[in-house]
Amino acid sequence: MDQPYTRIKGGACAAQGFFGSAVSCGIKNPESDRLDLGLIYSEHPCISRGAFTQNRVKAAPLQVTQLNLKTTHPRAIITNSGNANACTGPVGISDAKTMAKSTAKLLGIKQREVAVCSTGVIGLPLPMARINPHYEDLVRKLGPKNGGDVARAIITSDTHEKEFAISFPIGDQRIRIGGCAKGAGMINPNMATMLCYITTDANIAEASLERAFKGALEHTFNRITIDGDTSTNDTVLVLANGAAGNKTIRRRSKECQIFEHALRFVMNKLAKAIVRDGERVTKFVTVKVKNARTKPDAKKVAQAVANSQLVKSSWNGNDPNWGRIIHAVGYSGALIKEEIIDIFYESKPACEGGLQGKTNPEVLKNIVSKPSFTITIDLNQGKAEHYIYTSDLSPEYVEFNRSEYAYWKQAKEDGFI
Amino acid sequence: MDQPYTRIKGGACAAQGFFGSAVSCGIKNPESDRLDLGLIYSEHPCISRGAFTQNRVKAAPLQVTQLNLKTTHPRAIITNSGNANACTGPVGISDAKTMAKSTAKLLGIKQREVAVCSTGVIGLPLPMARINPHYEDLVRKLGPKNGGDVARAIITSDTHEKEFAISFPIGDQRIRIGGCAKGAGMINPNMATMLCYITTDANIAEASLERAFKGALEHTFNRITIDGDTSTNDTVLVLANGAAGNKTIRRRSKECQIFEHALRFVMNKLAKAIVRDGERVTKFVTVKVKNARTKPDAKKVAQAVANSQLVKSSWNGNDPNWGRIIHAVGYSGALIKEEIIDIFYESKPACEGGLQGKTNPEVLKNIVSKPSFTITIDLNQGKAEHYIYTSDLSPEYVEFNRSEYAYWKQAKEDGFI
Repeated sequence: MDQPYTRIKGGACAAQGFFGSAVSCGIKNPESDRLDLGLIYSEHPCISRGAFTQNRVKAAPLQVTQLNLKTTHPRAIITNSGNANACTGPVGISDAKTMAKSTAKLLGIKQREVAVCSTGVIGLPLPMARINPHYEDLVRKLGPKNGGDVARAIITSDTHEKEFAISFPIGDQRIRIGGCAKGAGMINPNMATMLCYITTDANIAEASLERAFKGALEHTFNRITIDGDTSTNDTVLVLANGAAGNKTIRRRSKECQIFEHALRFVMNKLAKAIVRDGERVTKFVTVKVKNARTKPDAKKVAQAVANSQLVKSSWNGNDPNWGRIIHAVGYSGALIKEEIIDIFYESKPACEGGLQGKTNPEVLKNIVSKPSFTITIDLNQGKAEHYIYTSDLSPEYVEFNRSEYAYWKQAKEDGFI
Repeated sequence: MDQPYTRIKGGACAAQGFFGSAVSCGIKNPESDRLDLGLIYSEHPCISRGAFTQNRVKAAPLQVTQLNLKTTHPRAIITNSGNANACTGPVGISDAKTMAKSTAKLLGIKQREVAVCSTGVIGLPLPMARINPHYEDLVRKLGPKNGGDVARAIITSDTHEKEFAISFPIGDQRIRIGGCAKGAGMINPNMATMLCYITTDANIAEASLERAFKGALEHTFNRITIDGDTSTNDTVLVLANGAAGNKTIRRRSKECQIFEHALRFVMNKLAKAIVRDGERVTKFVTVKVKNARTKPDAKKVAQAVANSQLVKSSWNGNDPNWGRIIHAVGYSGALIKEEIIDIFYESKPACEGGLQGKTNPEVLKNIVSKPSFTITIDLNQGKAEHYIYTSDLSPEYVEFNRSEYAYWKQAKEDGFI
C-alpha cells in the first residue's frame, strides 16, 4: 500500500461516528433470508457530495436524492437491492420518499437528510409491503461494526461484498476514509447498477470536499467499464462528518491535497474491485493511451478499445490480437495516424508503426493469459493521456444475461402481472 | 417480391456483359481447396461509385481502390478472402497494386481500372507467392455464369454465399441489377469485413448513379450492425456498364426514381442477408425509432438499442425485457423524456409512458422468441424516424471470437514469424 495510508478494518462505518445495519426483507424473493435493505447513519451532521448516472432514464430514488442534495446534506443512506425502482413513475417517487420519511422519523432527522438508493430489476414497483415492516429493526440494529452488512445488502450479481478503508495522519489527527460498493457489470440479470458509499470523519470545508471528490471520481469511477451499458441507478455518495476533530481542511492547502489523494486511493480500490468482480469476468485490463493529440482523442481511443466486443472476446481467449486493438483505435473517432501507432502488451511492443512488432508472439500470449495486464497504445502525436479499467467478455457473460424470461418470472412471482 | 421486379438467377454477373471467375490459392491454408480469389469483369467500360469504411485504419487495397476511383471508373474487381491486407504498410500497398496490375495486363485494361478488395486476418502480409501464380487461370475462367463462384470466394465466417439479382423494365428495355456480399459480423475470427459488389447493365448518367447509390446506401448498408465493430476493409462498389441499351437515365427523371428503388431493393436484400448470417446470430431484429425530436436523436436511440450487449443478450434468451431497451434509450445521448416513451414488440405495447404496458407478457415472449421481429420505440416528441437492422448476441459469438491464439497460429503457419 502507498505510504502513508494504513488499511483499517471495515468499510462504510470505518470512520468515527458512522453506524450501519442491514436486514432481510425478501424484496426479490420472499423465501430468501439474504440481506437486502441497508442503512448508513452518521451521529453528527455531514457535508456531502454525490455523482449520478448520465443516463436520461433515472430511477426514482436517484431523482429524489439528487434533488435533496441541492439544498441539504444527507447524514443517512437507506439502500436496497432486488429492485431498482426505475421506470416506476409517480408510484416509484412516492415509494422512495416513504423509505426516506420512515427512516428519518425513527432517526429523528429531516426526511431530506436521508439519501435513497436502489438496485435490481427495472420496471417493477418496489414491493413496499415487504420493506415497510423493517424500518424499526433496521434503525435498532445500527452499530459501528456493521458496515459489512450494508456492503452485503447492496450486492446483486456480485460474487462478494466490496469494502475498503484506510486511516492516515493530517496534522496531529488521524483521519479515516472508508466505503463499500457494488457493481457486477452495471447489471444484474435484469440490469442494475453501480453504487458506492464513502464516509469519512475528516473535518473538511465543502469546497475542498467538492474538489477532492470530483478529482477522485474522474480518475476512478469515471474510468471503469464492463459492458458499456450505463445504468439508470448509478450513484456515488461521499459523507464527511468531521468527527476526527482535525482543523478544517481548506482548499489549496497541503492538507487538502493529502485528503484528495487518500480519497482517490479508496475510490480507486473500490472501482477496480467492481471491474474485477464484473459478471463472469476473467481478466482485469488497464487500457492506457499515450501521446494523443488531445485529451478527448485519448479518451475516445481508450473507450473504443475498452468496449470493443471483439477485443474483449480475444482477451478472454488469451489471444494477443493487436489487429483488433488497432481496428478499434481506427473507428474510435479520434484523428489517429495508423502508420505511427505503437501498441504494447505490458512493456513489449506488439505493433510498431502500425505494423507487426518484433516481440515473440509467445511472450505476448503469456502476458494476455494473465488475470491482469496493461495494454498501452502510443499514438505518437501529442501529449494527452487517458486510461480505463476494463475486463474481458466471456461466453458466460452472455449466457448469464440471456436470462430466459427472468424479468417476467420476477413480475409474476411478485404479483405485479 | 415487390412489383415490378423479377428475381433472376445469379448475382454479380446477372447483368449483361459482366463475367466472373474464382480460383483456390490456399491464401489462408495451403492445404485447402476452397475458393479464395475472385474476379469480376465487364466487357464494356463502366461508370461506378464506391463507399468505404469510416475506420481511420484503412486496409491497403481500400486505399488503392479509393484513390483510383477519384480519377477512373473500375471495370474489374479482384478480391480475396483469408487475409485483409490491413496494417501491412508499404508492402501491403505494393501487394494490392501487384494484384491490380497483373490482372489489368491480362485483361488488356488499365491498372487503375481494377479495384482491389481483401478480407481476412489483419496485420499479416498477403502471401503473394500463393496468389501470383493464379492470375492467368482466373482470367481464363471468366464466364457469365460464375457470379456464384465469386460470391463463394469472398466469404469468411459466413455460413453461405450471398447473392441476389433482379430485372425490371425501364421504358422498352429490361435492366438487370445483381450483386454479392459477405459479412458475418464485420469479422472473421480475426476481424474482417463487409464487402459488396453490385453490377448493373443500366445505361445511366454518373450523377444519377451517384444519387441512387447514396440513397440506397443510407437505407441499407448504413443501417446494419452485428457487433458494433467497424472493419478496416468495408467496401461497397457499384458498376454500371450500359449494356442494356436503354436511353440514358438522367437525374430527377421518373426512370431515375425507378432505378433508385430497384438498386435499394437489391442492396437491402444483401444487407439483410449479412445480418441474418452474422456470426452465431439466431435473431434478425428491426429497431424502429418514431417521433424523435431530430434525425440525429432518432439515429442515436436506434444505434444504442441495436448495439447494447444487454439488450442483445436478452433477445438471445427470448426475454421481452423492455427495461433494458429503455435504459439503452436513456444513455443514447438523445434528449428523450422517459415518461412519454412507448415501446412496442411488433404492434404490442410493452412499455407505455415509461411504465410497464398492458400487454400480457406471454404475448411479448412469443414475439421475442421468433427468429425475426420488430421493436418500435415511440419517443412521442417530434417527427423524426430511423431504423436499424441488428441481431442478438449469443454465447456462441463470444466462444467463436475467443479464437484461442488464432492470429499467431496463422502467422506461424504462414511463416511470417
